[in-house]
Amino acid sequence: MKFDLPQTPAVQVSGKSFRLAQVDPDDITPFVYGADDKREASPRLLVLRQRLSDLQELLYAEHKRSVLLVFQAMDTGGKDGAIQNLMSGVNPAGVHVSAFKAPSTNELSHDFLWRVHAQTPKRGHIGVFNRSHYEDVLITRVHGLIEEKIWKQRYEDINNFEALLTNSGTVVLKFFLHISKAEQAERLQARLDNPTKHWKFDPNDIKERKLWPAYQQAYEDAMRHCSPAHAPWFVVPANQKWARDLAITEIVVAALEAMNPQPPKATFDVAAQVVE
Amino acid sequence: MKFDLPQTPAVQVSGKSFRLAQVDPDDITPFVYGADDKREASPRLLVLRQRLSDLQELLYAEHKRSVLLVFQAMDTGGKDGAIQNLMSGVNPAGVHVSAFKAPSTNELSHDFLWRVHAQTPKRGHIGVFNRSHYEDVLITRVHGLIEEKIWKQRYEDINNFEALLTNSGTVVLKFFLHISKAEQAERLQARLDNPTKHWKFDPNDIKERKLWPAYQQAYEDAMRHCSPAHAPWFVVPANQKWARDLAITEIVVAALEAMNPQPPKATFDVAAQVVE
Repeated sequence: MKFDLPQTPAVQVSGKSFRLAQVDPDDITPFVYGADDKREASPRLLVLRQRLSDLQELLYAEHKRSVLLVFQAMDTGGKDGAIQNLMSGVNPAGVHVSAFKAPSTNELSHDFLWRVHAQTPKRGHIGVFNRSHYEDVLITRVHGLIEEKIWKQRYEDINNFEALLTNSGTVVLKFFLHISKAEQAERLQARLDNPTKHWKFDPNDIKERKLWPAYQQAYEDAMRHCSPAHAPWFVVPANQKWARDLAITEIVVAALEAMNPQPPKATFDVAAQVVE
Repeated sequence: MKFDLPQTPAVQVSGKSFRLAQVDPDDITPFVYGADDKREASPRLLVLRQRLSDLQELLYAEHKRSVLLVFQAMDTGGKDGAIQNLMSGVNPAGVHVSAFKAPSTNELSHDFLWRVHAQTPKRGHIGVFNRSHYEDVLITRVHGLIEEKIWKQRYEDINNFEALLTNSGTVVLKFFLHISKAEQAERLQARLDNPTKHWKFDPNDIKERKLWPAYQQAYEDAMRHCSPAHAPWFVVPANQKWARDLAITEIVVAALEAMNPQPPKATFDVAAQVVE
């Protein structure tokens, strides 16, 4: 999947030399914005949403190819919010969001890609992964549940799996929502300070937070090893929610534009149809 | 499920005396509207969407009850559009849209509620049915695929099934998007006139259109027989898309307000949590 990257603060991972620390989670520079742009319904976002809606309908109508959007982030990174934003205005009949939580006993008794493969989008559809097979080289690695040779093997398995999807007509785009450690502290504290948000808080989040450097390292390694041109990773500065949402929508729209889905020709005699 | 019905053009089906022909598909009267109200993002709709988003989060957090929204309509009635509108702004992680098309061989070898039951929403979720088990007393009846005693039996089966859902904590709301025959003609013609919409047109739609009175009768009968207080049918005037969307959103928000979902209490010691 080759397409001209739109001007956004997002950085496409370029391979082995990529350094996560070089991306500023607060970056919004390429966006020229006025007073309105930070609003949830900024003019540019409304234009993009309409374009996304039209392109999705064409993708659905064409019924040949599909799109898989993978979302990963540290806790509070904004996966739910970003997905909700992206999906507002698209036809739910053509989108399927899959959230991957801790695997079940049944899922664990298969290979790590088994449950993920089952959720890949069918022709004409957009599939969205809220977490994904990448957790199997992240949390498992950080907690020492798998050895180095296993996670390195998994990079290869992941690349082969994503190549299969690409070869079968699925465009794979992967987004890492990049927040700073200080931003995470603010978001966790905000959940603690608001009783209606306590259900979103897990004391375990504080333990996980202490493993921040190990997670950043695991993310960086995974992105370095699993960024073929056909299934790119985008690191999206995500401290500013509006800029995060705008950047993601720009990239998805640009990818769909490049796919250029075409509505199928009528299989019936159009002139012969009379609506009475 | 009892709740104060908001002021909308929609009519709640009241039982055996209900007459579909008495609902005007063009009705917009209870809506006081200005120049802005017909826009896709009218002020009232934006307010309702935010409220819906907040209530959905609480329903999800509470994780005790669920909501099932059933959408039925004649061809071109606007099911996709209404669902897309309703879902814009809600968190896709808590919503599942199921479209029921012609049943597969496997589905046909089970009872007619089997495939439907499998798609009912889990706790905390909103399930949306694009077509539903009602097709089994509509298209099947109109085309003479089942006998009268079968469809009458099915009314009872449907009532029992919806009672099971209600008893298990699911609020069931059913919407019939009511367009006029003239409006359908316009919408079908618009598809024929636009080559990018030909994929949405099926010559069979014209044959089905000739069965309009039989379908209206089948809908009316189904609504008369399957409108218990706990699983009401709403007939939504749907010639005007903006009024249709506004009416549905008003009703869903009112129902969720009446459910009054509560976030669960924290299961951890809030004061002991320190974000460093």
